[in-house]
Amino acid sequence: MRKIVIVGGVAGGATAAARLRRLSEKYQIIMFERGEYISFANCGLPYYIGEVITDRNKLLVQTVEGMAKRFRIDVRNLSEVTAIHRDRKTVTVKNIRTGEEYEETYDTLILSPGAKPMIPPIPGIHEANALFTLRNLSDTDKIKAYVDHEKPKSAVVIGGGFIGVEVAENLVKRGVNVTLVEMANQVLAPIDYEMASIVHAHMRENGVNLILEDGVKAFEDNGRRIVLNSGRTLETDMIILAIGVQPESQLAKNAGLELGVRGTIKVNEYLQTSDPNIYAIGDAIEVKNYIHGFETFVPLAWPANRQGRLVADHIHGLDVKYNGTLGTAIVKIFELTVAATGNNEKTLKQLGIPYEVVHVHPMSHAGYYPNATQMTLKLIFDKETGKIYGAQAVGKDGVDKRIDVIATAIKGGLTVRDLPDLELAYAPPFSSAKDPVNMAGYVASNILDGMVETVQWHEIDEIIANGGTLIDVRTPKEVACGTIPGAINIPLDELRERLAELPKDKTIYVTCQVGLRGYLATRILHDNGFRAKNLDGGYKLYSSVFGAKH
Amino acid sequence: MRKIVIVGGVAGGATAAARLRRLSEKYQIIMFERGEYISFANCGLPYYIGEVITDRNKLLVQTVEGMAKRFRIDVRNLSEVTAIHRDRKTVTVKNIRTGEEYEETYDTLILSPGAKPMIPPIPGIHEANALFTLRNLSDTDKIKAYVDHEKPKSAVVIGGGFIGVEVAENLVKRGVNVTLVEMANQVLAPIDYEMASIVHAHMRENGVNLILEDGVKAFEDNGRRIVLNSGRTLETDMIILAIGVQPESQLAKNAGLELGVRGTIKVNEYLQTSDPNIYAIGDAIEVKNYIHGFETFVPLAWPANRQGRLVADHIHGLDVKYNGTLGTAIVKIFELTVAATGNNEKTLKQLGIPYEVVHVHPMSHAGYYPNATQMTLKLIFDKETGKIYGAQAVGKDGVDKRIDVIATAIKGGLTVRDLPDLELAYAPPFSSAKDPVNMAGYVASNILDGMVETVQWHEIDEIIANGGTLIDVRTPKEVACGTIPGAINIPLDELRERLAELPKDKTIYVTCQVGLRGYLATRILHDNGFRAKNLDGGYKLYSSVFGAKH
Repeated sequence: MRKIVIVGGVAGGATAAARLRRLSEKYQIIMFERGEYISFANCGLPYYIGEVITDRNKLLVQTVEGMAKRFRIDVRNLSEVTAIHRDRKTVTVKNIRTGEEYEETYDTLILSPGAKPMIPPIPGIHEANALFTLRNLSDTDKIKAYVDHEKPKSAVVIGGGFIGVEVAENLVKRGVNVTLVEMANQVLAPIDYEMASIVHAHMRENGVNLILEDGVKAFEDNGRRIVLNSGRTLETDMIILAIGVQPESQLAKNAGLELGVRGTIKVNEYLQTSDPNIYAIGDAIEVKNYIHGFETFVPLAWPANRQGRLVADHIHGLDVKYNGTLGTAIVKIFELTVAATGNNEKTLKQLGIPYEVVHVHPMSHAGYYPNATQMTLKLIFDKETGKIYGAQAVGKDGVDKRIDVIATAIKGGLTVRDLPDLELAYAPPFSSAKDPVNMAGYVASNILDGMVETVQWHEIDEIIANGGTLIDVRTPKEVACGTIPGAINIPLDELRERLAELPKDKTIYVTCQVGLRGYLATRILHDNGFRAKNLDGGYKLYSSVFGAKH
Repeated sequence: MRKIVIVGGVAGGATAAARLRRLSEKYQIIMFERGEYISFANCGLPYYIGEVITDRNKLLVQTVEGMAKRFRIDVRNLSEVTAIHRDRKTVTVKNIRTGEEYEETYDTLILSPGAKPMIPPIPGIHEANALFTLRNLSDTDKIKAYVDHEKPKSAVVIGGGFIGVEVAENLVKRGVNVTLVEMANQVLAPIDYEMASIVHAHMRENGVNLILEDGVKAFEDNGRRIVLNSGRTLETDMIILAIGVQPESQLAKNAGLELGVRGTIKVNEYLQTSDPNIYAIGDAIEVKNYIHGFETFVPLAWPANRQGRLVADHIHGLDVKYNGTLGTAIVKIFELTVAATGNNEKTLKQLGIPYEVVHVHPMSHAGYYPNATQMTLKLIFDKETGKIYGAQAVGKDGVDKRIDVIATAIKGGLTVRDLPDLELAYAPPFSSAKDPVNMAGYVASNILDGMVETVQWHEIDEIIANGGTLIDVRTPKEVACGTIPGAINIPLDELRERLAELPKDKTIYVTCQVGLRGYLATRILHDNGFRAKNLDGGYKLYSSVFGAKH
């Protein structure tokens, strides 16, 4: 009987174990978990702190006993695997309850150790009393107990990634004054700066004191005072350290397994490490970027789960492989949903890959049906082939749906030209006859077809500073509420009659509210012999980044 | 200057006109509309009756003046095109205000006449006073005025299609006692019977008196009494006739243009009629089924809109074609969302196309996060290739997203084997690490891989009647709330110990709540030398159709 040993029983590990059993009653399966719990709801932890989830038991997706019984798996929790002996195919296991150590043999080993919070060597960090990280249920219990009993008035969250913003929101829900400190110029690295700007405003509106482009220099007074790199100091009752995670690869490294980027465990397309008897899955491994093929580190739940399934299938002899990670991610922040799939501009710039971008601001569903809200949807693609490189969306409703549709389109090999052809479900409570994804596809296709040229939000100020002509084709009433400094107001419906006011010898830049009227205007200008470029995303996107201007 | 004449200015017609102008300032564009309004929100009309939409102006997406000005289009409303003279390339137009008739020439003609409610020759129909159909704003105004001023206590809606169920809901919202009469054994033809059963229960829970498999024989007493085919009579204060629509193809027919199925206007892949100078789009045309290629009639907003765009592109000389209609459709019914894409079982049976079906009942998002609700998701596919033929879903939340993802997968040529690989956005408020679409893909792939054999909800009663062995692997507590008559209860976690109770010489059928534990049980049985089949969709689906049984 083949003996399969799994190290780590939370996400991918538990999935692999269950799938192995479904594949065959004949495997001997042992699953070691260092912590007390297997298969708990990691992604739900911040919401338990915020009392959005009130029943702690709900976080326990699968109990040790339940899983052992149902899947006939030898589940050993509070059991840490401390060494792998590849020569004799055994692992050393430490029973955390008793301190006792023993060896266990394996035919096949699956490593699913996960990732742990990074703890940088900041002066005073070890003396800080109420400093927490959030990885597991025990961390969650500590944070929640502190909030419940110490009733902190203030908290500083360090790091604006998914966990940081989720914890910030949930502490606000508990009545805590939250400051979030982020080293970069934006929160949520998977989206680009202009999209994050919308999130920044929303977090501030909801009471988060957001400090960007600053980091922690030192913790003082047992963590009651934080000194930032800028010299600014923050007094606080508690600290959440959420600057990121790093793969738990020490065990693999000690066993001489090959490592990948950022200390990950290197695996092949079958999720085998450099030792073919040892597989690795989940947050600890290096994955290939689905679109551009580069090696990367994407600690997310979906890939862990998928890999858990595939590793079981491959061990069972099925012809499967892991095709890489797209990096689809989503987070709720107060009333906003922020989601992304594929690669962002920052990544493509770093890789030196040319790309084109469009931003649209469609309604979540038919504008005439109650509760429609406007979202910002960004599409990144190859200007030559129309290949979809990525998408990002921010809005109050329907954002998850549009990113999922685009993630599916990417997996289907569809290009931006195919997006208008997606026959998506329309009735007024759900969408419009042109869904936001159709709309983004139309706008991108217009660029591919040469129907319109665009400029981006970050280019227009400099263009005007250098003497460029920008016309704002909205109504005077709209323009009175703010416009791009230097813009000349010619309402779209007057444009055909006022062409004589415009120079024929230089490019005319056009803006409107969201980009649609600007597009119509550039078409009119083009057909009348002018050269014109539309400001992609219009004044709405521009003012999201720079604020209202007059 | 090329002169393009458009007949019909509501959905596809208005889209074509606007796109033509964006393509070129040089076209002369005339758009005739028989009614008063162009480009109104057809799909919103029932909700205005129900006062969900309270501002009538919101239904007017585009005014005649606004469109004329912005797109420089000669919009002539209250102008009916009564004849096409293909020989001299003119149309006869009747000014409805003045009764005056004139001819207008065209270089290219676009027909976008739409579809009209069917009015069958039922005895007494013309004498019925408060009998309404719902097609346009004027119909809506009449119905709303009747409800507002006559305050009907009761209404009978005849026909359970999209319009019928939407009007039924909106009349209930207005405090009217609604009876809905449908000739078929189910409402909403795009979904199959077992899915519609969920809708039937929900409509009844919300106070609709639903009469299935019955039709109207006669209207009596000026429509105050309805006699059904069954002999049953209904007293009512008002009647909505919504038995379906038929294409407005008389104009095309009179002009000698070729017609298609169900009286539609026949077009080629470029949306040209049998006269290449005449295009036709929208609810009046014949389309090809996207998946199986047969000719069909799909009067929906998305295709009309898409065709409006494409017809403009083709006229402008762009290399585009219409690839057929998938028939993605969605409707809100009280708290439920019902959506479908592709082909249903009924259609495939009629066509004699073999197919396989799976039903899953996943949660809309992580079960531990508040407000997660269970949906029923059905996937129909080819058992050999895994090609996706269609999907249907019913639930309170997240149904639109899953159907859109599957519609996109179909357009991307993905099979059910690719669905587990869709990297969809996961955080607890939005999904699970295995999204419902992933889950459906896993279940379908298991069938393709021979991991499990299934039986359907409509087969199991007969199997038991013929002496088949069915085990229900839920807990005794669950079974006490209802099970399939004849089932033997062996809880899953006891199955391995109780195998001796089961016969090895015949197929064992297995059921559970949703199908998942049943699948595990069939795997255990299979690996222990039994032949086993799982009841697809479990007791939940079975009881949706047949009600709770003991």
